[in-house]
Amino acid sequence: MKKKKIIEPRVLKGFRDSLPAEELKRKELQRKLEETFQNFGFVPIDTPILEYTEILLGKGSGETDKQIYRFEDHGGRDVAMRFDLTVPFARYIAAHLQELQLPFRRYHIGKAYRGENTQRGRFREFYQCDFDIVGADSVSADFEVLSMVGTSFKNIGVGDVVIRISHRGVFRSLLSRLDAADKTTEILRTVDKIAKIGPEKVKQELTEISDEGRAGKILSFIRKKDTPAETLDAMAAAVGKDDPAVERLRSLFSLIENTELSGTAVIDPSITRGLDYYTGLVFETFLTENPAIGSVCGGGRYNDLASLYTKEQIPGVGGSIGLDRLLAALEGMEDSSPPSFPGNVLIFCMDEKYLPFYHRLAEKFRNNGMGTEVFPEPKKIAAQFAYAERRNIPLGIICGEDEIREGRINLKNLVTRESFPNLDEKNAVQTAARLLGKSREGSVH
Amino acid sequence: MKKKKIIEPRVLKGFRDSLPAEELKRKELQRKLEETFQNFGFVPIDTPILEYTEILLGKGSGETDKQIYRFEDHGGRDVAMRFDLTVPFARYIAAHLQELQLPFRRYHIGKAYRGENTQRGRFREFYQCDFDIVGADSVSADFEVLSMVGTSFKNIGVGDVVIRISHRGVFRSLLSRLDAADKTTEILRTVDKIAKIGPEKVKQELTEISDEGRAGKILSFIRKKDTPAETLDAMAAAVGKDDPAVERLRSLFSLIENTELSGTAVIDPSITRGLDYYTGLVFETFLTENPAIGSVCGGGRYNDLASLYTKEQIPGVGGSIGLDRLLAALEGMEDSSPPSFPGNVLIFCMDEKYLPFYHRLAEKFRNNGMGTEVFPEPKKIAAQFAYAERRNIPLGIICGEDEIREGRINLKNLVTRESFPNLDEKNAVQTAARLLGKSREGSVH
Repeated sequence: MKKKKIIEPRVLKGFRDSLPAEELKRKELQRKLEETFQNFGFVPIDTPILEYTEILLGKGSGETDKQIYRFEDHGGRDVAMRFDLTVPFARYIAAHLQELQLPFRRYHIGKAYRGENTQRGRFREFYQCDFDIVGADSVSADFEVLSMVGTSFKNIGVGDVVIRISHRGVFRSLLSRLDAADKTTEILRTVDKIAKIGPEKVKQELTEISDEGRAGKILSFIRKKDTPAETLDAMAAAVGKDDPAVERLRSLFSLIENTELSGTAVIDPSITRGLDYYTGLVFETFLTENPAIGSVCGGGRYNDLASLYTKEQIPGVGGSIGLDRLLAALEGMEDSSPPSFPGNVLIFCMDEKYLPFYHRLAEKFRNNGMGTEVFPEPKKIAAQFAYAERRNIPLGIICGEDEIREGRINLKNLVTRESFPNLDEKNAVQTAARLLGKSREGSVH
Repeated sequence: MKKKKIIEPRVLKGFRDSLPAEELKRKELQRKLEETFQNFGFVPIDTPILEYTEILLGKGSGETDKQIYRFEDHGGRDVAMRFDLTVPFARYIAAHLQELQLPFRRYHIGKAYRGENTQRGRFREFYQCDFDIVGADSVSADFEVLSMVGTSFKNIGVGDVVIRISHRGVFRSLLSRLDAADKTTEILRTVDKIAKIGPEKVKQELTEISDEGRAGKILSFIRKKDTPAETLDAMAAAVGKDDPAVERLRSLFSLIENTELSGTAVIDPSITRGLDYYTGLVFETFLTENPAIGSVCGGGRYNDLASLYTKEQIPGVGGSIGLDRLLAALEGMEDSSPPSFPGNVLIFCMDEKYLPFYHRLAEKFRNNGMGTEVFPEPKKIAAQFAYAERRNIPLGIICGEDEIREGRINLKNLVTRESFPNLDEKNAVQTAARLLGKSREGSVH
């Protein structure tokens, strides 16, 4: 035998292990989101994490090129790990157009990879959560996506949110009128930074890109007015009453006002989204109680999603939720409950010879919907209590020789220390269910 | 603008897109498994897909080395994509020993990567589903893992399964008695193939490895007897009455006989598992209705899981479910239901001017737990019916000018074609809920 060398159990910089408490929270968040998505008729898809580099970089900018995990596989193919879920989705739509029913409502939750500078607090492996309605260019689809965003945030319990919406077309018309259409991309990207760098800095940058007069007009345009109606009127005044983009925004807003989304979605002309491919609606979502973390969900309408991979023009509207950022926000919220582990009942192990009794009892508890473990070894009882406490297991079953001989069960509320001795099996199951039933999370008072 | 070249939307060989119907089934299977795991007190974890190659290959055989996706990252690090969930878990345990509570029950469902020969029907990106109890070497933990396997398969509804169990220690004792301990690994791997290649071929290979006398004795040893008691007695006769491994197997079997696992878990001395690291219990699970697809869940006990990464000796017992194989099996089963899409109600779009009405109604249906979509464009009604049919949406709401003016709602059962005209909003919601409530899957009769 070779002499053993210990390998340091480290993970790569920018990568993380997920401990059970975090992983349970992530799964719970994901479950609530998926439930909402499915309630809106959205269906899940998945794509490979590894793709041909050619596919992934079709749309890539220089920045992405540098960050992508790219290599040559065993067959000499140029391959790379996906850096978002948008590009693979465009490829997916082009590949499966004949099999999918349009309009196609889909969501996709999965990991993506970027070799980013970790000093900026970014991770190199991170979750994306995307959703889209593909195959319809209509105000109804625009609204349904916004409505789903509003409902999603309501269902995950992060308090109120505000969804700030605008329309790329209005901005483009304005720049056209200002004779600045050739600078559209730079101007959009600058305005997009307003929440981060403030209006003064934006104005200064816009002046450098264009001139002071235009910078002033843009700043005046993106300022929100007192009411949605006034904001819409000001937009119309800036680009013309008949501008179809303003009309579309007006129709969208009349749908919003009519539903539960009223008050949550507001018109904000400063919303641009930096990315080139948006052509209509654009939106960003902020937590009312925690606006500082920035947008937790953004998106918009694009009218040729898959043009790199097919000649068919495929319109769509969708968005993306920043899961990692949202989890961090949930972590910091006051009403965030302590990690709720799945175990409800711990059956203490007093002696291995009683294992048949313990395991049969565990079966009964599980069959009645209570998460149950048998402590696997006859360790000191203090060690078993300590384990239950660290795991937040609220109920214990403690049965030794006397109890088992006489067919009695001792149930203990490990939180309050209250004991329920001398129960028969049926009573033990009922009492435990009653104690656990008092709260949704399975904790016992 | 550059002239556009269409990129072929292909995926890499051995990789797959997941279409909604498959993805819904996979998620449903995963949900049922996770529910069962949590009912046994198991908690989820996750690890990065990308790790230092040194970590992943610490335990690798030559075969793994060739198949691993390995490359140099931007920082010049030698990195690789995980090829299973076992090695990352060993690293994880070593890294987080202080933060975890032992005994630690965990599960992990995630993707892994191997550049395998796809001609063998293997995929290069595939799911693994692993679960373990770490930190206890006891028959109770062995039993709990088997009990969870039995319950998992019951809950996912694949019909009856048989869990074939044995103990490595008994086999080792036998080889020791036969003076063939130096050939243990080869012999174990050969016996492991018995389900695939049959006893004749195994005997022939064993004769080549050792000799005919020993091959005969091994073949006789691994033959199952008529009853578990007889099998245990034959094992004891082969290796000695006091052999601790036979004793352990006897204790385990007395727990099994006492619970719902009785009849499902059987002792089968031919079960060896090919892998070196098992030291105690070994098991394989077969579908009674579909044994040909091979083992759908195997595992066992190992007593130094993390020895490459820590000096602490960490015993454990666990298993792994072949999710892809199981999904394929579910696909082929007779009672496999057609894909159940999440949409319950489609609100037809007769004219865009009624969108405020449609979307407010959609909100009502969703708030009452019914997955609801508004068709996003005023397309021909036949196209909207066709969409509902392809998506398996059972209920339609069809309201045009007259209905909306008079506040009436037309509900249609799209399966039976039955109509429910002239409903008010409350009645429409109640009628739809009643129709959907008739079956668990949301289909309407």
